[in-house]
Amino acid sequence: MTDVVIAGIGQTPVGEHWDISLRELAFNAIEAAVQDSGGLRPQALFVANMLASSLSNQAHLGALVADFAGLSGIEAATIEAAGASGGAALRQAYLTVSAGAADVVLVAGVEKMTDKIGSEVEAAIASAIDSDFEAVQGLTSTTQAAMLMRRYMHEFNAPRQAFAGFAVTAHANGANNPNAMFQKAISSEIYQRAGVVSDPLNMFDVAPNADGAAALVVCRTDLLPPAYPHPLVRISGSSIVTDTLAIHDRSDPLNLDAARLSVERACRQAGIVPEDVDLFELHDAYSIYAALSLEAAGFAERGLGWQLAQDGAIGLQGSIPVATAGGLKARGNPGGASGAYQVVEAVLQLRGQAGANQVANARRALVQCLGGPAASAATHVLETLG
Amino acid sequence: MTDVVIAGIGQTPVGEHWDISLRELAFNAIEAAVQDSGGLRPQALFVANMLASSLSNQAHLGALVADFAGLSGIEAATIEAAGASGGAALRQAYLTVSAGAADVVLVAGVEKMTDKIGSEVEAAIASAIDSDFEAVQGLTSTTQAAMLMRRYMHEFNAPRQAFAGFAVTAHANGANNPNAMFQKAISSEIYQRAGVVSDPLNMFDVAPNADGAAALVVCRTDLLPPAYPHPLVRISGSSIVTDTLAIHDRSDPLNLDAARLSVERACRQAGIVPEDVDLFELHDAYSIYAALSLEAAGFAERGLGWQLAQDGAIGLQGSIPVATAGGLKARGNPGGASGAYQVVEAVLQLRGQAGANQVANARRALVQCLGGPAASAATHVLETLG
Repeated sequence: MTDVVIAGIGQTPVGEHWDISLRELAFNAIEAAVQDSGGLRPQALFVANMLASSLSNQAHLGALVADFAGLSGIEAATIEAAGASGGAALRQAYLTVSAGAADVVLVAGVEKMTDKIGSEVEAAIASAIDSDFEAVQGLTSTTQAAMLMRRYMHEFNAPRQAFAGFAVTAHANGANNPNAMFQKAISSEIYQRAGVVSDPLNMFDVAPNADGAAALVVCRTDLLPPAYPHPLVRISGSSIVTDTLAIHDRSDPLNLDAARLSVERACRQAGIVPEDVDLFELHDAYSIYAALSLEAAGFAERGLGWQLAQDGAIGLQGSIPVATAGGLKARGNPGGASGAYQVVEAVLQLRGQAGANQVANARRALVQCLGGPAASAATHVLETLG
Repeated sequence: MTDVVIAGIGQTPVGEHWDISLRELAFNAIEAAVQDSGGLRPQALFVANMLASSLSNQAHLGALVADFAGLSGIEAATIEAAGASGGAALRQAYLTVSAGAADVVLVAGVEKMTDKIGSEVEAAIASAIDSDFEAVQGLTSTTQAAMLMRRYMHEFNAPRQAFAGFAVTAHANGANNPNAMFQKAISSEIYQRAGVVSDPLNMFDVAPNADGAAALVVCRTDLLPPAYPHPLVRISGSSIVTDTLAIHDRSDPLNLDAARLSVERACRQAGIVPEDVDLFELHDAYSIYAALSLEAAGFAERGLGWQLAQDGAIGLQGSIPVATAGGLKARGNPGGASGAYQVVEAVLQLRGQAGANQVANARRALVQCLGGPAASAATHVLETLG
């Protein structure tokens, strides 16, 4: 296959954007990404979105966003895999360029979640889990994560406080990200005193629902202008893997098989092992998923992922930095757009443009987003070229 | 690129399936398609769906359908482009195989529309048009089509009765399709007497909302077993093109630019002109779109598409047969699944398996599905090999 690179990145601040429409959010990110790419002209657009049909009565975002971005006439479609939509859309862009069907492809992750009341939003998010067998019983993504965390604490004798390190790390990094929803560090004590959301999850175990958009320009290396201003970032591994949608169908709910398999496949394609990466943008929609993702990727033994948070290994100077721009927890979690934000943040690291959050000599990143209870896992390996 | 073929097809009857869940519908079509392919093992799945988030509180159909079909662990995602979802999903499957990322890819179009009351369904379908600027005013897809038809009648002095031929042809063909929702021929007089739905659209100008699922197995030619039982059907052209989402942004609402461009691109890739095809599975969600699609594809001059319906040219023995299995009108229109049904029906024609509806010597088909007011148009050229 041709070398496929991420030539442009763009993002809007994450937060409550009651004054900006869905299409404007997407456009702002696209405009920034196209400009960042040196003005490449996209021939196709994949929109990553999960909730616009249910929260904004708007499907058909491919045509909508292409139109509003002044790109009407190009190819477009929406790619959805719940919380893994951003990674799934990047993969389709990667395949489209690899197949030679387009030279320059745009990915736009966009989500608008804060215009509706919380209960409506929580119900819409629950469409990511099994509606007929889980949500129908009253289960939501949050209560499901709570049960997973309870089970984890029971199985592995992990205290609730063991999860503090994930939120503390995310908030420390978010403090330096001008696009983060929460730009404020927290202490372990603040974590400890936080109100319970769904026992044992407290407020800092749960990433906030948010509005936001992030965009990526994906293209063939040989199309970049000679004066291209950034270090090149190549997609060297790409994978999506599914697991059972309902957790009750898994032999062990604490094994994220799809996350594990998608890391294995993406790394195999890239010719690396996970230990070769300099950072891991993981899907910390709930802190329990951060712990389980670290284990699934092989950075910790089963039941010991939380220790990486406790001993500083996931910090910017640690052995496997995660959530380097705040993660879903502090940057905010705009649903289907989160996976695109993760890629933007990894590219900033690999270009050496991550500012105060720069991981020293970052040359290779693992980026993973999860849908529902990790029933979809999209993983990419990104590397600097040359 | 490698030759990519549609090796397996499957479909469920179209209708009101209150007793069959979304996942079971999809599974039934998938099981049939895999069996039809001679037992090929899919490595990836693209689900075409538009309405499950809003009507069934279920997103994340990639993981759900893969899981229920016993394919958990494969790659999966949902592809949505409103009514063009089926064609968009086929295109992603085609690109995935072309890129060498998978050898065998499944497309499953599935929609379940009849469990909810009509007004809810109509509102959900209106998510295919511009929510902020059209639907917010009370416009629906149906009333929009009515305005287009009114404009067409005015511009081109076409009588309302001019559209009868589309419904009569569709129902004549649907009468011989055991999977069609309406297996009953109608006369021009019955069309004339039908109640008005949204002036000037009458009941027979509007395809019925329906439940259904259709599936396709897409793979590389060289992977087929020597004993593969069907004539080979190759994808020789594939294209998706967008137009403005809101009709008021178009210089002429009676020109379906996306439909025209996508036919041009798909035909150019296939090395043919539209006149070379033996049938045209078009998107007759409303009869006005059948007329406009025939014009956009070049089979009729502007304003004269309706004449092809009147003089029998679109019949099975005509110069450009359309809706050969009943079209959306008589087979039924299960939203995001309709595009997959169209492909199933075209493949049956090209294999010579279309029974009483067989178009003589059908070797090449144009298949097109439209999203919203043809703001997305997905077009494929399919050909028999050898």
